[in-house]
Amino acid sequence: MIDLKTKALELHLGGKLEVASKIRLENKDDLSLAYTPGVAYPCLEIAKDKELAYKYTSKQNTIAVITDGTAVLGLGDIGPEAAMPVMEGKCLLFKKFANVDAIPICLDTKNTDDLVHTIKNLAPSFGGINLEDISFPRCVEVEERLIELLDIPVFHDDQKGTAIVTTAALINACRLVNKPFNQLTVAMSGFGSAGSSIAKLLKKIGVKTIYATNTKGIISKSKQYDKSVVKMLENKQIDSYDIKDQDNLAQIVKGADVFIGVSIADVLTKEMVNTMADKPIVFALANPNPEIKYLEAKESKAYIIATGRSDYPNQINNVLAFPGIFRGVLDAKYKKITDDMCVAASYAIAELIKDEINPEYIIPSVFDERVAVAVRDAIIKTGE
Amino acid sequence: MIDLKTKALELHLGGKLEVASKIRLENKDDLSLAYTPGVAYPCLEIAKDKELAYKYTSKQNTIAVITDGTAVLGLGDIGPEAAMPVMEGKCLLFKKFANVDAIPICLDTKNTDDLVHTIKNLAPSFGGINLEDISFPRCVEVEERLIELLDIPVFHDDQKGTAIVTTAALINACRLVNKPFNQLTVAMSGFGSAGSSIAKLLKKIGVKTIYATNTKGIISKSKQYDKSVVKMLENKQIDSYDIKDQDNLAQIVKGADVFIGVSIADVLTKEMVNTMADKPIVFALANPNPEIKYLEAKESKAYIIATGRSDYPNQINNVLAFPGIFRGVLDAKYKKITDDMCVAASYAIAELIKDEINPEYIIPSVFDERVAVAVRDAIIKTGE
Repeated sequence: MIDLKTKALELHLGGKLEVASKIRLENKDDLSLAYTPGVAYPCLEIAKDKELAYKYTSKQNTIAVITDGTAVLGLGDIGPEAAMPVMEGKCLLFKKFANVDAIPICLDTKNTDDLVHTIKNLAPSFGGINLEDISFPRCVEVEERLIELLDIPVFHDDQKGTAIVTTAALINACRLVNKPFNQLTVAMSGFGSAGSSIAKLLKKIGVKTIYATNTKGIISKSKQYDKSVVKMLENKQIDSYDIKDQDNLAQIVKGADVFIGVSIADVLTKEMVNTMADKPIVFALANPNPEIKYLEAKESKAYIIATGRSDYPNQINNVLAFPGIFRGVLDAKYKKITDDMCVAASYAIAELIKDEINPEYIIPSVFDERVAVAVRDAIIKTGE
Repeated sequence: MIDLKTKALELHLGGKLEVASKIRLENKDDLSLAYTPGVAYPCLEIAKDKELAYKYTSKQNTIAVITDGTAVLGLGDIGPEAAMPVMEGKCLLFKKFANVDAIPICLDTKNTDDLVHTIKNLAPSFGGINLEDISFPRCVEVEERLIELLDIPVFHDDQKGTAIVTTAALINACRLVNKPFNQLTVAMSGFGSAGSSIAKLLKKIGVKTIYATNTKGIISKSKQYDKSVVKMLENKQIDSYDIKDQDNLAQIVKGADVFIGVSIADVLTKEMVNTMADKPIVFALANPNPEIKYLEAKESKAYIIATGRSDYPNQINNVLAFPGIFRGVLDAKYKKITDDMCVAASYAIAELIKDEINPEYIIPSVFDERVAVAVRDAIIKTGE
């Protein structure tokens, strides 16, 4: 680990991102086109029709990757400055996997109204907004309000990106165990940004029953929650569990077909997995230390195991979704990222490898270059 | 002109800026350093000491070029989207002349408080803020309040950039006509962002008398002004003119040693120039159409003529200042751009060519690569 730390710090010296010119700027003629007086012409065109900003400026290919630094990796609220390395990394991934130009912006406010207002104010130069690492439940409201306010796509990756890739993996896992979604019972550990969005998307594709635990125990109508959770219970996007015996994870895992962990390390044991239904599907996504250690899960009756880690099979990583999602909406000039697009993206990722799937290969590799293209095409198709 | 328009629009297709990676990102090992899990190490270092953001992130070399689109070129309030081509052009100039990574951000608000608050919120990812094309007099307050609020340099180029380069040109012009600053009378046409800042800087280097006109006629204590102008009158950063005869530009031009125009086309005639003191210095900086046409000025007794245009001698262009200014403060990690730095920058630009000056060469070419280096060095020296 010391070696990784040293290497990582060394790599980060001076930052990871820079700006580059797409045009030549060598002499007075070049300058008179790219700057005054020539630059006045595109300005005047856009002043007449705002939409022409997509034609004559970088808006067409540029998004902002925005955080308030409150839920960075597993590190929590480390502040906007300390969030920068993650945002820069994210921007690099956008560029590498989908040639999207992404700009890291770390905001010095945690107030929901202020976040929404600030992001609304800075939106005109961008073709989309990728929200990142904003803590739950504020992130739900921030995303919802911005989607409503802005005429460019807004996407909180920790919510929907994770949901899309997890759903993609579950689509292929269910193919292998031959269980239809409408008969599935899912037990979730963790019900924050990722958990709540996974539940919404799984319900959207037809999953029958989803129970979840959070820091208050099993989610149940008998308890008090934040308004976003209350709304989900009302809409049956999460099922209320009728608590009779113990109020813990073991209770909902018992008999479940699927475990999805988006919480903390070591909350699931092999004994608990062995109480699940036939051919258990175990997605232990806490990173870097999953809800159950991979090798322990291998000793259980788990039939399919996925984690967020790159050193085991079936890595569930958001990078399979976000580059293609934004490539798609930017190319098609869509103004929103809809639920239907998220479903389409999940299926696109899953279908890409459907003829090759096996319990150790339910999701494409993060370096599979076909993924972003497939996701992009699927996104574009939803609007046609 | 049609040809320039066609060429300029064609050049702008797709925008002028993109993002590039400074590191390799080809395989899982690269990804594990630049993104999870390795990225956590620089995050944790910065969480302990915010200043380390300069070491481990792009903050060290990245500034935001921010506008609200209210005073773009000579086009006025064309809105944030239409301002983008200018901001992108500016960012290219920062990169080309000083290797500063600059990001264009066009804000969807014109309210002074809201501008200040939004820019404060988005500051953490940036090592500096270049304000651009914000209308007078709001720009003065926006800049002053941000300088106070933020711990990174803030610079409104339309104020101070123009003032620095105009002052540099005047330093060399006065050398040629052999007139000391403390005996100089300057007549200015225009007293907005540029005019008011030019007056402040000229007073700072010792110019004796400065009179100016704005849309209300000659500036005089007998009239009502915005608080920023009132303050300048009180501080004698602009001199009050005791209006007896006509209240117009001709009145203050008569007998003046220097004319500086930062207003609109064709307000100065050759007859007016001929009423000036011996060896008149005429800076007609309205762009693209100066206060007096270059060829008309040549027919007058003007001894030195400068414009903002690239097709005549003595082009006064901000690009001589802003790249080196920010290169300097970023390299030295200065938190403010002080008045002393502005003076130092003016002298650095002027001195660079002092042994070669003549009436048609009082200011270096915009493509003189020594300029940004000289300005940078001068900026750094002010803090030593």
